[in-house]
Amino acid sequence: MSLETGGGPLTARVMTVIRQRIANRSLIAGARLPSIRALAQSQQVSTSTVADAYERLVAEGAIQSRPGSGFYVASQAAPLALSEIGPKLDRAIDPLWVSRQSLDAGDDDLKPGCGWLPPAWFPEEGLRRALRGLARADSAALSDYGTPLGLAPLRQLIGRRLTEKGVEASPDQILLTESGTQSIDLICRFLVEPGDVVLVDDPCYFNFQALLRAHRVTMVSVPYTPNGPDLDAFAKVCAERRPRLYITNSAIHNPTGATLSPVTAHRVLKLADQFALTIVEDDIFADFETQPAPRLAAFDGLQRVVQIGSFSKTLSASARCGFIAARPDWIDGLVDLKIATTFGAGRLNAEVTLAVLRDGGYRKHLEALRLRLSRARVEVGARLHDLGLTPWIEPQAGMFLWCRLPDGIEASAVARAALSQKIVLAPGNAFSVAQSAGSYLRFNVSQCQDERVFTVLKAAIGEALKAESRP
Amino acid sequence: MSLETGGGPLTARVMTVIRQRIANRSLIAGARLPSIRALAQSQQVSTSTVADAYERLVAEGAIQSRPGSGFYVASQAAPLALSEIGPKLDRAIDPLWVSRQSLDAGDDDLKPGCGWLPPAWFPEEGLRRALRGLARADSAALSDYGTPLGLAPLRQLIGRRLTEKGVEASPDQILLTESGTQSIDLICRFLVEPGDVVLVDDPCYFNFQALLRAHRVTMVSVPYTPNGPDLDAFAKVCAERRPRLYITNSAIHNPTGATLSPVTAHRVLKLADQFALTIVEDDIFADFETQPAPRLAAFDGLQRVVQIGSFSKTLSASARCGFIAARPDWIDGLVDLKIATTFGAGRLNAEVTLAVLRDGGYRKHLEALRLRLSRARVEVGARLHDLGLTPWIEPQAGMFLWCRLPDGIEASAVARAALSQKIVLAPGNAFSVAQSAGSYLRFNVSQCQDERVFTVLKAAIGEALKAESRP
Repeated sequence: MSLETGGGPLTARVMTVIRQRIANRSLIAGARLPSIRALAQSQQVSTSTVADAYERLVAEGAIQSRPGSGFYVASQAAPLALSEIGPKLDRAIDPLWVSRQSLDAGDDDLKPGCGWLPPAWFPEEGLRRALRGLARADSAALSDYGTPLGLAPLRQLIGRRLTEKGVEASPDQILLTESGTQSIDLICRFLVEPGDVVLVDDPCYFNFQALLRAHRVTMVSVPYTPNGPDLDAFAKVCAERRPRLYITNSAIHNPTGATLSPVTAHRVLKLADQFALTIVEDDIFADFETQPAPRLAAFDGLQRVVQIGSFSKTLSASARCGFIAARPDWIDGLVDLKIATTFGAGRLNAEVTLAVLRDGGYRKHLEALRLRLSRARVEVGARLHDLGLTPWIEPQAGMFLWCRLPDGIEASAVARAALSQKIVLAPGNAFSVAQSAGSYLRFNVSQCQDERVFTVLKAAIGEALKAESRP
Repeated sequence: MSLETGGGPLTARVMTVIRQRIANRSLIAGARLPSIRALAQSQQVSTSTVADAYERLVAEGAIQSRPGSGFYVASQAAPLALSEIGPKLDRAIDPLWVSRQSLDAGDDDLKPGCGWLPPAWFPEEGLRRALRGLARADSAALSDYGTPLGLAPLRQLIGRRLTEKGVEASPDQILLTESGTQSIDLICRFLVEPGDVVLVDDPCYFNFQALLRAHRVTMVSVPYTPNGPDLDAFAKVCAERRPRLYITNSAIHNPTGATLSPVTAHRVLKLADQFALTIVEDDIFADFETQPAPRLAAFDGLQRVVQIGSFSKTLSASARCGFIAARPDWIDGLVDLKIATTFGAGRLNAEVTLAVLRDGGYRKHLEALRLRLSRARVEVGARLHDLGLTPWIEPQAGMFLWCRLPDGIEASAVARAALSQKIVLAPGNAFSVAQSAGSYLRFNVSQCQDERVFTVLKAAIGEALKAESRP
């Protein structure tokens, strides 16, 4: 008894339980703690033990007592550590870690795991022309903030490009941002709150996970098939978890390269209607397409679907410029959030992007790029096949090949071995909320042009195989 | 009785109470509702009335029942409307509205209320040289993402510039961002949570309020004096409200143009230590200074103080580039958040900024700019004095004059009248969380070079005076 009330092991255990809930943010600052009675019950201790633990946590400053109202988490919580939100992951398959490795890679490092083209594959001459032109632009273009919606002629041009893909959006429905990622971030700020459920594909672009962690939402996923999300699983998750948002790429899916079929698109939209689900269609790979695939935004007419895009993949990731196309009644709220959190997006980047898009050379560049990529997909696919990797599908377009390793080999082990040789791979589970892609790797064929990729990969697979076979 | 259980006026009232709490986000999605007993007590109704109200709200889909656990706000809440968070404000003094008016102003509109220089006051030639140079840069500079921390030579240069101001920061403690606003946004994401208390000056830069609304924190303010925050009020708020963060400008305060005194700086830092308060020192006006004023970050050595800066005010707001200087152990967490929410900051803008800063012309430009601004402060100050406006202080540097209107005149009325003449003013209460600056206007002297500003202002004051004197 004295043990209990005197702050003995039981009190300590209760204090640890609460500290852990605060650390992993299942109790966030300002949140109300369970009542003394409720916690005593759930922890199988006496109420006096819980009361004692709470008093000690108050003394520590970890929680605050509000007389007559209960106990609350104090606001002096530790800084947000994204890497500590959600399941603890092996560094090699932590979404943030893979991004950092790719962004940090030195010029001599190879990064077949990264999600962008080598500099030489971008419209270099068009960019140089654009910069020379801007050097002669009026002073406002050089020094002024952008307007709240962003450079009008660029929004008009984006509107026309969307129409070509069947998405009807007036320039007033288009909001320029600093990137595709910032577009999704703004939409999350606008539509979701901590604790909301957000649906993604399994597998999906790994930074979706990092971004959603920053919004403290609960991620759920549905398996992705060669035609889009598994519809039965999709319907089940909608019914059981009531997600607020579904984030996906439809034209060229990342990482699989799959394309949404019209039938699946319609079914997904029907389910979205039924369950009041908003869909964010991330279309940043649009310009890689050889023939236009169906777009959710086209079928839906921007009612339940918000489409986002950027030019970082095909025009420049240095002059960053993205956009949001959304229903008219959402634009004002999105603009307010954009001003509040970034003031205006950079006008210079929008001017560069506009100049390159207007430059006749860009379409020619894209035609050459698509051809170059389809050749690379074939060549790299064959090389990977020789190493025992099997592509999940043969994508119609884009830079990615989603490949299965020989049985019994862990992608994370291969990635670690390759990294020690300064080669950044993208192991499957970095893309999988359900951690179901441990035997897959995503290859960016444009970053596989160096023989060393295959020699190191071969050696890494060998090492991983040895590691597996060890007793 | 039947009235109560049958969904009569009392039930309706309880439902309204809950709907309002959800609308003003005192109950956010996923939050637990008060227990039936507690609400019945606080609303002075029977428990069956509350039970009935909750059942009806469940049927509406506004709340969800979790058996054995209670009632929770449903996640299908409406999109976030910043303009509806916090007190409903007259459009003329809504922080977001003033920003939008300034950013939206046409080329022929005049905006003495805006917070930036006219294009011609920026280092135009340096920017043109920088763009011509970049047109010849290697292809990586034109098309690659920036590194996680941002362009290394620019971080080194920023480190040296900070040292000149007494702030010791190694390049590894400096994180490049897309703007000063994004810097503060990242820090808020890192350090605060919905419901936390954040302290600002009264008055303070109006976009701090819009930004903090987006983070759903509680804003409290302390009066600003010519030497910094009112220390007694500061100590009182720290003790009573335990703010997590204090956001301020120290060198040239926005909107007042005041300068923090060394004595006040030390006292503020002592209070920050005592109450475990983190300070964000927004130093974006640094380059306007004629003689360096004390910096909180310099006294503190970047322990409790995070300093942020940008080049939007003196170099270019089109090539946006900002930075965060913080304690070493916070950089990784901030970089993770930056990658998750924007992937990488634009490299092109960083390259342009670096080129202009390295260009010998920039320092010469600043010297000329400071002289031009101090002349303009004197001239515009005199013109405003003739119209009956009194400057709160005579700032040592910068573009702002914080002026009091003649007695009995509401700044918001003057702002509305001026706007009808296509002149954007900045009324005091847009800067005041406490709404205590209703008789002040902030003037940007660099935007007061057109005679029309004064003629329209004179007329607007006259109109406001008439309006006041009406019965």
